[in-house]
Amino acid sequence: MRRFIVVGHRAITTGDFKLDDLAGSTGRMDVLLRCINSAFFLSHDIRRDVEILLVLQGPPHPPKTIRLVGNELKYLNPDERSTAALVRNALLQKVDAEERSSPGIYVSNRSYRDVLSNIPKGEQIVYLKESGEDIRVLAFQDDVNFVLGDDQDLTGEEESMLLKYDPKLISIGTRSYHADHCITIVNNELDLRGAKTASIPPAPEKV
Amino acid sequence: MRRFIVVGHRAITTGDFKLDDLAGSTGRMDVLLRCINSAFFLSHDIRRDVEILLVLQGPPHPPKTIRLVGNELKYLNPDERSTAALVRNALLQKVDAEERSSPGIYVSNRSYRDVLSNIPKGEQIVYLKESGEDIRVLAFQDDVNFVLGDDQDLTGEEESMLLKYDPKLISIGTRSYHADHCITIVNNELDLRGAKTASIPPAPEKV
Repeated sequence: MRRFIVVGHRAITTGDFKLDDLAGSTGRMDVLLRCINSAFFLSHDIRRDVEILLVLQGPPHPPKTIRLVGNELKYLNPDERSTAALVRNALLQKVDAEERSSPGIYVSNRSYRDVLSNIPKGEQIVYLKESGEDIRVLAFQDDVNFVLGDDQDLTGEEESMLLKYDPKLISIGTRSYHADHCITIVNNELDLRGAKTASIPPAPEKV
Repeated sequence: MRRFIVVGHRAITTGDFKLDDLAGSTGRMDVLLRCINSAFFLSHDIRRDVEILLVLQGPPHPPKTIRLVGNELKYLNPDERSTAALVRNALLQKVDAEERSSPGIYVSNRSYRDVLSNIPKGEQIVYLKESGEDIRVLAFQDDVNFVLGDDQDLTGEEESMLLKYDPKLISIGTRSYHADHCITIVNNELDLRGAKTASIPPAPEKV
């Protein structure tokens, strides 16, 4: 299982938002919607071995966590608007414990701290950070959790909390990427590993 | 310059479409909008060395080509809806030769054939195809053009036309990806080359 945990630092925590202004009035929920797309979509298929947790920390009722489970998902389409409608539907649920809002989509009041503490013992944890080790040299376990921020890096406090779990710090490149692009690149790297292409040769110099 | 050429096989060729149903009523323009995002966006920055050409072949007035130029772009935001508004604005122009609809965005009646023939002589052409050679072993020139389909592969005729230009056939992985994800992965690979990380080690086996 690949699990992506994305912190939406000011992402809205009510379903009372308009689908027509996702980038402007939802605390950058649009970033998280694109993360959902990157996590799950293959050409004409959905990745069944993936889960994503979006930790929403914006007003008015933080925290909330939306969890999407690949092998249960239905009704997910790649465009932002229809994905937003599914998330909005989740946020309209009254939650105490975790509730299912539609097939493969769950909502809870879990905090970032709760989400980290719920990672099953023994699973690998990876912190996507620009100063980390090159992803192409890291050995991955089958069960791996990637933690990243939205359009903002983890805060000092969030980072400290994560470091207690002794994660691997990895970098996916020399530039600073959007969160959804990070997920796409990670998925591609893990796909290549899954194919046992252990002998991927070094990149040649530019010609 | 990195140039991406994406064929929108049934993408709408009028500005008369609704921003509220991009995935349903625009001939999958949503795919092309996500390609724009992947081509240009870095975290808090836009790639200035990138150009993307979207070749629209859907009704009612095909062909049209929308060209976005990184080092001139303004008003581009990462969400689908606002990008769609810029593309719609381009499609509302009356065009004969290529016209600018907003900074960095141009529209013309160029066909796929025209777009290929306009690639400057001597520039590298790469055809993203699943049966191609591994991207990680290909040597890239500074000026490189990537040709790919939207949610549909190139047709036999389109492929034949492209093969006359003797492109390199490359594959980016073992799975079949969405076009925008392909662009993200290509950009990442070229970023790594640009950083002269010529000694990227082989991926280790899974642990």
